[in-house]
Amino acid sequence: MSFYITEPTFFVDKKKCKKNINRIFSKVNDSGSIFRPHFKTHQSLEVGNWFREFGVEKIAVSSLDMANYFANGGWKDITVAFPVNLREIDRINDLSAKINLNLLVESPGSIVELNESIESPVSVFIKIDTGYHRTGISPEDTNIIDGILKKIRSSKLITFSGFLSHAGHSYKAADVNEIKQIHSKSMKIMVKLKERYLRDFPGLIFSLGDTPTASHADNFHGIDEVRPGNFIFYDLMQEDLGACELNEIAVALAVPVVSKHKSRMEIVIYGGAVHLSKERLLSPGKDYHYGFASHLRSEGWEIPDGESYVSALSQEHGVVKCSEEFFNSINIGDIIAIIPVHSCLTANLSESYRTVRGDRIEKFRR
Amino acid sequence: MSFYITEPTFFVDKKKCKKNINRIFSKVNDSGSIFRPHFKTHQSLEVGNWFREFGVEKIAVSSLDMANYFANGGWKDITVAFPVNLREIDRINDLSAKINLNLLVESPGSIVELNESIESPVSVFIKIDTGYHRTGISPEDTNIIDGILKKIRSSKLITFSGFLSHAGHSYKAADVNEIKQIHSKSMKIMVKLKERYLRDFPGLIFSLGDTPTASHADNFHGIDEVRPGNFIFYDLMQEDLGACELNEIAVALAVPVVSKHKSRMEIVIYGGAVHLSKERLLSPGKDYHYGFASHLRSEGWEIPDGESYVSALSQEHGVVKCSEEFFNSINIGDIIAIIPVHSCLTANLSESYRTVRGDRIEKFRR
Repeated sequence: MSFYITEPTFFVDKKKCKKNINRIFSKVNDSGSIFRPHFKTHQSLEVGNWFREFGVEKIAVSSLDMANYFANGGWKDITVAFPVNLREIDRINDLSAKINLNLLVESPGSIVELNESIESPVSVFIKIDTGYHRTGISPEDTNIIDGILKKIRSSKLITFSGFLSHAGHSYKAADVNEIKQIHSKSMKIMVKLKERYLRDFPGLIFSLGDTPTASHADNFHGIDEVRPGNFIFYDLMQEDLGACELNEIAVALAVPVVSKHKSRMEIVIYGGAVHLSKERLLSPGKDYHYGFASHLRSEGWEIPDGESYVSALSQEHGVVKCSEEFFNSINIGDIIAIIPVHSCLTANLSESYRTVRGDRIEKFRR
Repeated sequence: MSFYITEPTFFVDKKKCKKNINRIFSKVNDSGSIFRPHFKTHQSLEVGNWFREFGVEKIAVSSLDMANYFANGGWKDITVAFPVNLREIDRINDLSAKINLNLLVESPGSIVELNESIESPVSVFIKIDTGYHRTGISPEDTNIIDGILKKIRSSKLITFSGFLSHAGHSYKAADVNEIKQIHSKSMKIMVKLKERYLRDFPGLIFSLGDTPTASHADNFHGIDEVRPGNFIFYDLMQEDLGACELNEIAVALAVPVVSKHKSRMEIVIYGGAVHLSKERLLSPGKDYHYGFASHLRSEGWEIPDGESYVSALSQEHGVVKCSEEFFNSINIGDIIAIIPVHSCLTANLSESYRTVRGDRIEKFRR
């Protein structure tokens, strides 16, 4: 690292990020699908530019606030992959006046309310629940879908883009086979819906997106649009799902060591729940943990073996259960790297990032 | 609420906060102890002013960054209740030049390193581990304590303030009795240490602080300094520990409802892990949850019965498992209030707060 670290600092390995982008991009490209990466993971205009080098022009975000940040940075086609928040109609009008804004709906009522207040054209996707059961309409509920489409038809400013789903249940899959099954089931549901409504809406597409299935899929043949987000950074949760290798994880939190306790083989870091988030993972042979500890080297962090891990988090403190070797190699005042369990939440807690070379990367803040 | 809510918004009930301050303040005052509230919970100059009305002049914070924020706001006596981070020596020098800065040490080496670099006087507390086993020196390790004191004696700028502990294990106590036992054990340990070193350091004090023991203690007789933080807001974790009543919780996150799913009796809120944090609680008769849902009224939120609770959190989505009554009373586009599991982490994720009257409250941001 080429600058002096004093506080918890979120590091991004640009080379690994570009490799991770390329891996998914190649599959998308080979399959002739639209690539609409989800930018909620990095929330950064500068990181967004790395996608531009691959020709990416369409993105997804998770809030209208974030859409506004990226629109101001020159992105012209943004899907807010979140059920439309009717309370933010002013922001919707600001955005739809200047970009192609795609919103998500799952009830006829939302279309009615939207139609009463919008001032510029917006596109909508109907959110379909392919098995995650968080949001979306069941694909069997064609009555509701028909109801929404009827309202869309009678609106002058609202156009129908197609169907969108997020197979978030892939995060709970037991193994790679189950992830692949989830992927193929989602695809079948969406293809069937597309066939049903294609005659009435000839331009409609369907959009799928989550990192586990996108990472495991051999290709995206037959999928109109692919929309994963986490894959640019990856993290221990994805590694646990087999979606990436440990050495493909492109981010780590550098933290100062403030205390050592030999009797417990523990070191205490300045790095707590307000830096890492309380997302935790049950790794084989370990208790629940909040990240793996590793050495920070001049060219980045060493690939950790997982033998030393964050076993507890308070607001600003983290406790690292150490292997004897790791414990003995670390002194108070040293900096170590924590590989996060969930990179999206850890990135969200950082005010900015640093490249491995020490350059500052700006990002969105709520 | 007297303004239009469009996004997740952290509400503070000023009246309840002042009542909560008064409750602890009265016990401190009756006992003749020093009151040094921990400001990591609210992280706000304006909320800090509510303590000033009670004559509070000394505070604790959890990082040098936060100490800097409060020093700039006129606070002149600040304890950074965190093992000293030697990497931030520049900030230590900035702060110690203008305020009474109290640091925490737990090794002779830290004193040596500190002594080599400091430019203005600083006070140090020795952190004692009274049973939490996160940081601190075991009270039996008087060799280490003697070693630290020897180094302090030979320093011109470092003075010894006394001993400090945080009984964080009170958060894991099974019942009120255990919390009271933890409190009395901590106190005995600290009194014994004080007696041992008082002759050599006649001004030394000891400092205790955590909300569960401070809330349950009948009084603070014999304790030099009391240092809890969470009690100003309280939260479901404290309610679970019997440290407060549900109606004493002084904060709630107001969130827009974006989706309803009758078949599962679930509503989806714009309010996720980036707003509430992933701190969770296992309440009797429920699964793990991330907060209780309640109605927002013009004068604040209704005291929730806990029957409707946040059962799952993604980055920006929250899923609320609802009682039938609650489900039926809520429409898409409504605002509901979530009582947080851990108010410190939820407050930390907010860019600012609002009073129940709608006034904006500024706060520290990393």
